[in-house]
Amino acid sequence: MLNNDLVLRAARGEKTERTPVWLMRQAGRILPEYRALREKFPDFKTYIKTPEAVVEATLQPVDILGVDAAIIFSDILVIPEAMGLDYEMVEKKGPFFPKKIENEQDIKNLTIANPAEKLSYVTDAIKLAKSALSNRMPLIGFAGAPWTIFAYMTEGSGSKTFSKARKWLYCEPQASHLLLEKITQSTILYLKAQIKAGADLVQIFDSWAGILPPKQYQTFSIKYISQICDAITEVPITVFAKDAYFARAALSNLNCQVVGLDWCMDIAESRKLIPNKTLQGNFDPCNLYADKKTIKLETEKMLKAFGSERYIANLGHGLYPDIEADKVKYFIEIIKEYKHTN
Amino acid sequence: MLNNDLVLRAARGEKTERTPVWLMRQAGRILPEYRALREKFPDFKTYIKTPEAVVEATLQPVDILGVDAAIIFSDILVIPEAMGLDYEMVEKKGPFFPKKIENEQDIKNLTIANPAEKLSYVTDAIKLAKSALSNRMPLIGFAGAPWTIFAYMTEGSGSKTFSKARKWLYCEPQASHLLLEKITQSTILYLKAQIKAGADLVQIFDSWAGILPPKQYQTFSIKYISQICDAITEVPITVFAKDAYFARAALSNLNCQVVGLDWCMDIAESRKLIPNKTLQGNFDPCNLYADKKTIKLETEKMLKAFGSERYIANLGHGLYPDIEADKVKYFIEIIKEYKHTN
Repeated sequence: MLNNDLVLRAARGEKTERTPVWLMRQAGRILPEYRALREKFPDFKTYIKTPEAVVEATLQPVDILGVDAAIIFSDILVIPEAMGLDYEMVEKKGPFFPKKIENEQDIKNLTIANPAEKLSYVTDAIKLAKSALSNRMPLIGFAGAPWTIFAYMTEGSGSKTFSKARKWLYCEPQASHLLLEKITQSTILYLKAQIKAGADLVQIFDSWAGILPPKQYQTFSIKYISQICDAITEVPITVFAKDAYFARAALSNLNCQVVGLDWCMDIAESRKLIPNKTLQGNFDPCNLYADKKTIKLETEKMLKAFGSERYIANLGHGLYPDIEADKVKYFIEIIKEYKHTN
Repeated sequence: MLNNDLVLRAARGEKTERTPVWLMRQAGRILPEYRALREKFPDFKTYIKTPEAVVEATLQPVDILGVDAAIIFSDILVIPEAMGLDYEMVEKKGPFFPKKIENEQDIKNLTIANPAEKLSYVTDAIKLAKSALSNRMPLIGFAGAPWTIFAYMTEGSGSKTFSKARKWLYCEPQASHLLLEKITQSTILYLKAQIKAGADLVQIFDSWAGILPPKQYQTFSIKYISQICDAITEVPITVFAKDAYFARAALSNLNCQVVGLDWCMDIAESRKLIPNKTLQGNFDPCNLYADKKTIKLETEKMLKAFGSERYIANLGHGLYPDIEADKVKYFIEIIKEYKHTN
């Protein structure tokens, strides 16, 4: 089996010799080695559709940073594209949908994504990455939560308010549910294909969880995350609902093994609200700009607060592009060397 | 005195015949009457530096929407400018600082804002607006919280992560405090000048409260808001710390009379955490995109949850530019007609 299965054992709630660690956005972004690779491709989408290149980006943090898990290098927006809604990734600006979802007919025109047909570039990359990893450690697959994917498809781009996306929930609740159902079905097929290709754990990213009022979050997001969690029984699932502090009790009832925490969520309070799951996170990525002394102090404070069990060290959100790899390596070293006294 | 002092009485915790209401961003933005006025000016900054035009925008919602308070039409970024850091307001993009704060010397070069010299265009507008209101209702003054102003001055523009601003707190805590102190002193002078000119209540907007870890929020934001609250004793103060759910207990200890809630904050939970203050908010602005039946239902649900005392109806954030004035008027009517049964 795997030489290093710390992340999987921690996810399943088993005792581990030390706290395992991996980082959101560890692949790509901060590594000069990735940037050198990326320059050979005309754009981000061509890059992520080239399995050999994806494998290189996926493996780089394993070798350079020393993490305990690899995560396949890709983007959550491959799902809208596989459903029939094309997107562009604009350099330094983020995603843009030339033709966003404007009405119910646009939703009806979308198909349920067929991963074998539309997303084989991801599953092929997973197979290659698994082979390249040769059982060194687990490979994590992922998808966006239906609400977050919905938000991009209806807003048409990133946004400070996502008011166009949120308008749908108030004005067209039934059509919104239709779109969310289609995304959910697509996501289940997609995650199952990732698992079949070799993903050892899957994470659901609800990046825009925190902008919905609690009741809407239950109706339009948790409901669909729950369907995904119920459908995926093959491997552990992590749900990361950024900023959805109000939903922590609800997240504790999902059929998932791990819940991610952002850096605003208090550790002790979150343990109380989510007593039965492994927690993941919640180091502030900005803390990695600090000097090493501060990084060490804050990292050890966090490790102590989470305790020695049911915890996977990670950030409270993805790495920022200008964080130095050297600081990231140091953060990972501290975690791997830390001895819990309890 | 004032013909309609409902907002002030509610702020002071006194019983009112009905729930008072005003809306963040009620002036400007959504009103066609404002847009017609705004077109006569080359840019936003010229507009807000023309007291007669400011008064028109300030009074429009009083006459057109039927609110219970006017708020002076201005921007929180007048403070950096008065301290020596110029900004531009880019149409449809937001604020931009051609020369943002890059190092400690930049901070040392800033002055404490002298309102009489640099911000008389605001105080003149307040005097004119007070006269135009002729005691119909209170006039609200405002300023950004020091942390939010700091965030713009160091980031140089709006941002999804404000990672450059937050980097300062980790890497240059002392210089950060120096800048925050200068902003705080400027803000106290500015608010006192607004009050002297006629503002009947002042609100502090901490728009980027929710992106700081709780401990940093205490150290770098609450500390300075607290200094402002202690310094302003002339009129009631409202503190609105958007997304800072974790700071509600701390906000309840401030020397302020009113605390604003965004739309994610549970009403009953917030009442428990902030037992001794009047609350303001928390209607989701996106809810105003819905049909009138839904608006009525949700508004009455909110009014019932807040109860008949210690509450000022408002939104959980500012109005969005494409919300219809007719829906806004309807929302205000429902609040004014609502009869509490308890």
